[in-house]
Amino acid sequence: MSVTEPALLSLTEVADAIATKKISSRDATQSCLDRAVKSQPSLNAYMSIEADAALTAADAADAALAKGQSRGVLHGVPLAHKDMYYDEGHVVTCGSHIRRNWVATTTATSLQRLKDAGTVRLGSLQMVEFAYGPLGHNVHYGAVHNPWHVDHVTGGSSSGSGSAVAARLTFAALGSDTGGSIRLPAHFCGVSGLKTTVGLVSRAGAMPLSQSLDTVGPLARTVEDCALVTGLMAGADPLDPTTSMRPVPDYMAATRASAKGMTVGIPKAFYVDDLDADTAAILQNTIATLKDEGIKIVEVDLPNQGQLTAACQFVLATEAAAMHKRWMIERPQDYGAQVLMRLQNGLAITGVSYIEALRWRGPALAAYLAAVTGTDAVLAPVSPGAAPTIAETDVGNSSGAEAMIQRLTRFTRPINYLGLPGLSIPAGFTKAKLPVGMQLIGRPFDESTLLTVGAAFQRATDFHKQCPELA
Amino acid sequence: MSVTEPALLSLTEVADAIATKKISSRDATQSCLDRAVKSQPSLNAYMSIEADAALTAADAADAALAKGQSRGVLHGVPLAHKDMYYDEGHVVTCGSHIRRNWVATTTATSLQRLKDAGTVRLGSLQMVEFAYGPLGHNVHYGAVHNPWHVDHVTGGSSSGSGSAVAARLTFAALGSDTGGSIRLPAHFCGVSGLKTTVGLVSRAGAMPLSQSLDTVGPLARTVEDCALVTGLMAGADPLDPTTSMRPVPDYMAATRASAKGMTVGIPKAFYVDDLDADTAAILQNTIATLKDEGIKIVEVDLPNQGQLTAACQFVLATEAAAMHKRWMIERPQDYGAQVLMRLQNGLAITGVSYIEALRWRGPALAAYLAAVTGTDAVLAPVSPGAAPTIAETDVGNSSGAEAMIQRLTRFTRPINYLGLPGLSIPAGFTKAKLPVGMQLIGRPFDESTLLTVGAAFQRATDFHKQCPELA
Repeated sequence: MSVTEPALLSLTEVADAIATKKISSRDATQSCLDRAVKSQPSLNAYMSIEADAALTAADAADAALAKGQSRGVLHGVPLAHKDMYYDEGHVVTCGSHIRRNWVATTTATSLQRLKDAGTVRLGSLQMVEFAYGPLGHNVHYGAVHNPWHVDHVTGGSSSGSGSAVAARLTFAALGSDTGGSIRLPAHFCGVSGLKTTVGLVSRAGAMPLSQSLDTVGPLARTVEDCALVTGLMAGADPLDPTTSMRPVPDYMAATRASAKGMTVGIPKAFYVDDLDADTAAILQNTIATLKDEGIKIVEVDLPNQGQLTAACQFVLATEAAAMHKRWMIERPQDYGAQVLMRLQNGLAITGVSYIEALRWRGPALAAYLAAVTGTDAVLAPVSPGAAPTIAETDVGNSSGAEAMIQRLTRFTRPINYLGLPGLSIPAGFTKAKLPVGMQLIGRPFDESTLLTVGAAFQRATDFHKQCPELA
Repeated sequence: MSVTEPALLSLTEVADAIATKKISSRDATQSCLDRAVKSQPSLNAYMSIEADAALTAADAADAALAKGQSRGVLHGVPLAHKDMYYDEGHVVTCGSHIRRNWVATTTATSLQRLKDAGTVRLGSLQMVEFAYGPLGHNVHYGAVHNPWHVDHVTGGSSSGSGSAVAARLTFAALGSDTGGSIRLPAHFCGVSGLKTTVGLVSRAGAMPLSQSLDTVGPLARTVEDCALVTGLMAGADPLDPTTSMRPVPDYMAATRASAKGMTVGIPKAFYVDDLDADTAAILQNTIATLKDEGIKIVEVDLPNQGQLTAACQFVLATEAAAMHKRWMIERPQDYGAQVLMRLQNGLAITGVSYIEALRWRGPALAAYLAAVTGTDAVLAPVSPGAAPTIAETDVGNSSGAEAMIQRLTRFTRPINYLGLPGLSIPAGFTKAKLPVGMQLIGRPFDESTLLTVGAAFQRATDFHKQCPELA
């Protein structure tokens, strides 16, 4: 294998290339670092680029491998993650001024499991302040830019993860999805992203925003890469008692399974309403591709999904306000204006409303599952349109801010509220050459089916292979 | 065995007497019914006395036993329970006007497990409206009277259970304990009562008040009887996902185990502050008896327990308000004034305060457990004094009502907040011949130790054997 630019490989490819000594960990790491440094002025995807430490770790990985010692399936693979995964001894800013210099004293379980598989730390990636926002602005560290067009947003809150994976500055990156924060940047940046079922991946050591809704998951170039990362992280963790005890399926096998004969449901309403023209066309193209792959398409009549979006916001706002109350009292001036306003809004919600919003989750999930009976997954757009510009969405705490956020997230939040898995896959481009993603929505803990359908789609398409030019 | 009045036997004794055909189920049932009917005008312990159905069921139990068919360890034993355990086909009032004619369509898991052991239904027992009150008043069905002195309260909310078990109108009775509702009537009426660890006994089919705090448990004549009933009910239930999967210990064996060499902690403060003189003396007598039984007594320095009482009220009031919101809107006039006022108070609590009160539970439990290191159980009064009169506590929704309730429940609520088990045992009488109970407080899911200490105490004392004269 002749690899002139290792950073352009997929995660699965680079892991294999290092394991078989076709390339060194140092070369893979140097390639990512070169692109990261080059693009940083235009993209601002990295919070911290740690070149020296990364190369030292890469050399150690290469030396170990030379002695026949491999730590795991990601031995020597360099990665960077959303800067909210605690990594002992490292500053973890959570995209905030408040934690600008905070050094983690523990390591997140999800991150530790990737490290145990052999990864090398490249640094950390930008994010929306405290993960509370779907766009990618950050008043403390600047907006992250979309590598397909630097005037446009990346989506958030995993803004750096979306930008860095799309621009090939890391082979994959952890994001977190509380209201759409993995799927939105995956959609806007043209990469794959898996929002996992609540309870599949430990949240221990991941900055909390909403204990009922927070999920950990990857953004990566391909569905296969998402499967690889998720399989390593998933499964019970004594440090997070909300994790499920069920055995973790073989997600890589799921990506190789045939999707022929499966049934995908298309919602009759809500997720198909008020789409931009490009998104509507790409949805139809996606349906056509799935049909070509032998997948049966049926319409599904879902219960009122708008109510789920509202319930999700009640839960999220209340839990986020509880999490931030002390800082809101002691250091309000240290928050960005929009994040502070949204956190303060949560203070007004009554306990009864919060409990009602939580209690409705069970019946709403039962109604959803009944409505999708007979389907293996549901297909829907991630958002009504492609990435807006940074300028037009830089609304701070103005009166229209919340409404704009609600519009952007209305297709993602219901899935968070129901706790379901959602896989976002690149599905096309607008006329202006901005990516558009589609999400496959599954049953609880059935990530496997989504990965099977998503991988089949990627075998038939090349949207995920397209790479933006570095500015 | 010559048994002139079977109702005076303990539960364990009557179960054995029926199983060995020393008495019939009909005789046991008739004896309870006679006392129930006789005492009803003075005690008002029963919500519904179902003599014909009970005798028919008793005859069937006798007939089965004659053919060698026993349903279980409580074959043919007549029981009545707090009228909040759903029993398919029966009216379950929950002590309310709103459910005056409501017929249950399912059966509570706890009750079903007792039925599966062979019990006969005597009827149902009075309770405080929707289990929200610690005294025993009920504007819809009248106050329940204390069999030791009919001018005095029984305690609540399991008012009928306390009165009926004390007056030997049933061999045991289910209560429920959200803020003290088993331990308070056990204390005021001079019977044994076990508040179980949250998660030990299924709440499925038991009227909910507070999902974080509600617990199911028995009131009975003896600790041994409490062990028998709890052992039958405990253990995982698919209908209540909050139940623990751990195996259920042999609680009857626990009552026979030796308590010698165990260590019981006495709180230095809070639980021993501002006691009535009789209660203070009885606490000292109880300590002396435990010492005589070879139990080591040590002082324990607990974290601030008053804060726990306040946190408990935040959780309880918010969850109760959420549970009742729709009826509060649609049928406010159908609630008693005090219950409505207390439910409405819960509407004002913010979601953030509720979440904070819930979140503090883990750290507070850890701090409590650290403080009791080296002890097997903690001993404390159930309430600062013996039963007040019905008249003096009939305060409705007056301004002093909540303060009076807080005073009465301040020793029970911390245990609910922490989710711990608590065993109330008769420990003496005031000069006015009103019973006083003490509670043994244990570690999570360690009911066994409480039963061991409580049974040892009952082998050394006869407070639990004393029976009030039927008026």
